[in-house]
Amino acid sequence: MKKYNFSAGPSILPQYTIDQTAAAVKDLDGIGLSILEMSHRSKEYEAINRETASLFKEILSIPEGYQVIFVGGGASTQFFTVPYNLLQTKAAYLVTGDWAKKAAKEAKIFGEVEIVASSEDKLYNYIPRDYTVPQDVDYFHITSNNTIFGTQIKEDLEVGVPLVADMSSDIFSRPVDISKYALIYGGAQKNLAPAGMTFVIIKEDILGKVDRQLPTMVDYRTHIKKESAFNTPPVVVIYAALQTLKWLKQLGGVEAIEKINIEKAKVLYDEIERNKMFAPTIMNEMDRSIMNIPFVMAEGYKELEGDFLKFATEQGMVSIKGHRSVGGFRASLYNAMPIESVKALTACMQAFEAKH
Amino acid sequence: MKKYNFSAGPSILPQYTIDQTAAAVKDLDGIGLSILEMSHRSKEYEAINRETASLFKEILSIPEGYQVIFVGGGASTQFFTVPYNLLQTKAAYLVTGDWAKKAAKEAKIFGEVEIVASSEDKLYNYIPRDYTVPQDVDYFHITSNNTIFGTQIKEDLEVGVPLVADMSSDIFSRPVDISKYALIYGGAQKNLAPAGMTFVIIKEDILGKVDRQLPTMVDYRTHIKKESAFNTPPVVVIYAALQTLKWLKQLGGVEAIEKINIEKAKVLYDEIERNKMFAPTIMNEMDRSIMNIPFVMAEGYKELEGDFLKFATEQGMVSIKGHRSVGGFRASLYNAMPIESVKALTACMQAFEAKH
Repeated sequence: MKKYNFSAGPSILPQYTIDQTAAAVKDLDGIGLSILEMSHRSKEYEAINRETASLFKEILSIPEGYQVIFVGGGASTQFFTVPYNLLQTKAAYLVTGDWAKKAAKEAKIFGEVEIVASSEDKLYNYIPRDYTVPQDVDYFHITSNNTIFGTQIKEDLEVGVPLVADMSSDIFSRPVDISKYALIYGGAQKNLAPAGMTFVIIKEDILGKVDRQLPTMVDYRTHIKKESAFNTPPVVVIYAALQTLKWLKQLGGVEAIEKINIEKAKVLYDEIERNKMFAPTIMNEMDRSIMNIPFVMAEGYKELEGDFLKFATEQGMVSIKGHRSVGGFRASLYNAMPIESVKALTACMQAFEAKH
Repeated sequence: MKKYNFSAGPSILPQYTIDQTAAAVKDLDGIGLSILEMSHRSKEYEAINRETASLFKEILSIPEGYQVIFVGGGASTQFFTVPYNLLQTKAAYLVTGDWAKKAAKEAKIFGEVEIVASSEDKLYNYIPRDYTVPQDVDYFHITSNNTIFGTQIKEDLEVGVPLVADMSSDIFSRPVDISKYALIYGGAQKNLAPAGMTFVIIKEDILGKVDRQLPTMVDYRTHIKKESAFNTPPVVVIYAALQTLKWLKQLGGVEAIEKINIEKAKVLYDEIERNKMFAPTIMNEMDRSIMNIPFVMAEGYKELEGDFLKFATEQGMVSIKGHRSVGGFRASLYNAMPIESVKALTACMQAFEAKH
């Protein structure tokens, strides 16, 4: 049976990425070695590393003065790495979800942290807009897309201080004006690659301003200087990322994929609003993520939640159970998900409605 | 042409690991999803994670009171993570190579560091044995196998203080009495899996003794408590590790592989010593690594170094060029390398000798 993978991450990847990676695990380009056993100092891997960084910069139109590095770990590692590198006295955080809150918590180890606004009062179901960013902070941190709660900051904010964004779950889903940011980071396991790598886009002139001594691996300059090969990089993950970038470029880049993503989100939101059995959790359309769409059973149908989950699972829907803190359902519609899969889900919702 | 992969890491993996991983990248056990896109909260991945930890403990006979965690990053990340977690006032380090030296450097950020001995005076071509470990240190750190220089500490030291070992390049190559250690860590990319994961074996009662505030991701207790799934783990790397562990268990575990490894090292060292054109760099047999074997052209043949490299490469030998700091050649004979491949290299050395 065909599976429709709505997982929030690690999540669906292009079939091209899967096919190319499977082939390279067997034998990389016919050289007689698996990508799993390639030295990271081999000319083959050095070419892969360079091409990945180059396509990454090209597709996101990363301007001069910025560097891109790939590091091991995961975006959670950046929660402390960012303040370690950038927080001299004070930072400001916008708390729009669990990850933003966790990021702010780590920063407190390194300096003063001001939470300029939080939507925790309403289970993070909106993006706060009425706040002031203090102008004496080293940086202002946001989470552009809130994977768990399904909200998204779609505009590139103008805040007057260095802007840092965790874009783990919406990088490459839409054009971003990188020049508005001082630093952007994210885990690879949504729109890029399997889990095991984190990218960091860094405006170089923000580095070197803190007094504390940085561990070598924590210091962004280490990885910039050695082009992400100071230590052994996660070779197979970066190989897979390269395949996804090639796929995305071929498809027309972030402008083309954004149109598709907006259309996909519309198909699902339209059905959630039309279908009397379901209801959205994010009411403000402006705040709705085009990547992660949570929804619940409507009033009067609450007791059918388990039934719908079972019904949808039987029809091949994977990972549509909502995060435990929200309940209900969540469909993640990352770049690699075709619109046909979204329609399979809406067809499933319609069939469930017809049944009751 | 068949390739013989002598890379120091990422390095040769069992064909079983490569085949199983390639199949799982296509479709994990026929469930209709690639291992690259599996949620780390799926029941399938949770089973993989549990089984990997369980086999890891079984094969190494890890006693009660110890925990094993898998984290992203690389062993270099542990260079600062170890002192962050364990160094309250003072630590001692044995410097037997570049990696040991780098580990000691990071520790200095967190407290006083005493280098009890160093073999840097002779380009790390021996293991110092004449030293005293101060008994007032929080721990004593060693690098059990020196990948670059080809030396190895084969005994489990008795030092009277908590013993910490970087075993990146010899874990699973031989039995180790884990109870002699407080902490053992290593990158996966030698005897275990592709690059992208680091294991840490921790005696639980050594944690929680430092005063400083630890970032959540740096604190070993975070990963112990959440069984290596606090944040998104490198799923495909851990899947590959599980395959290697299954292969090793089937083969008879660390006792069986140690016999094979000793035999393989003997085959190559015998040829290096017999062949008039080559010479070893590690003279003390007791210090010779069974994993990484450096050798150089003998006196009178120095100018043929480039010729031999070309000759061997043409016969399918991969990554036998020595590390830039040592020169000459280095053959890494990790677990997955069959003795036939070592004999292919010695045959190549004999053919080169016959030619001249």
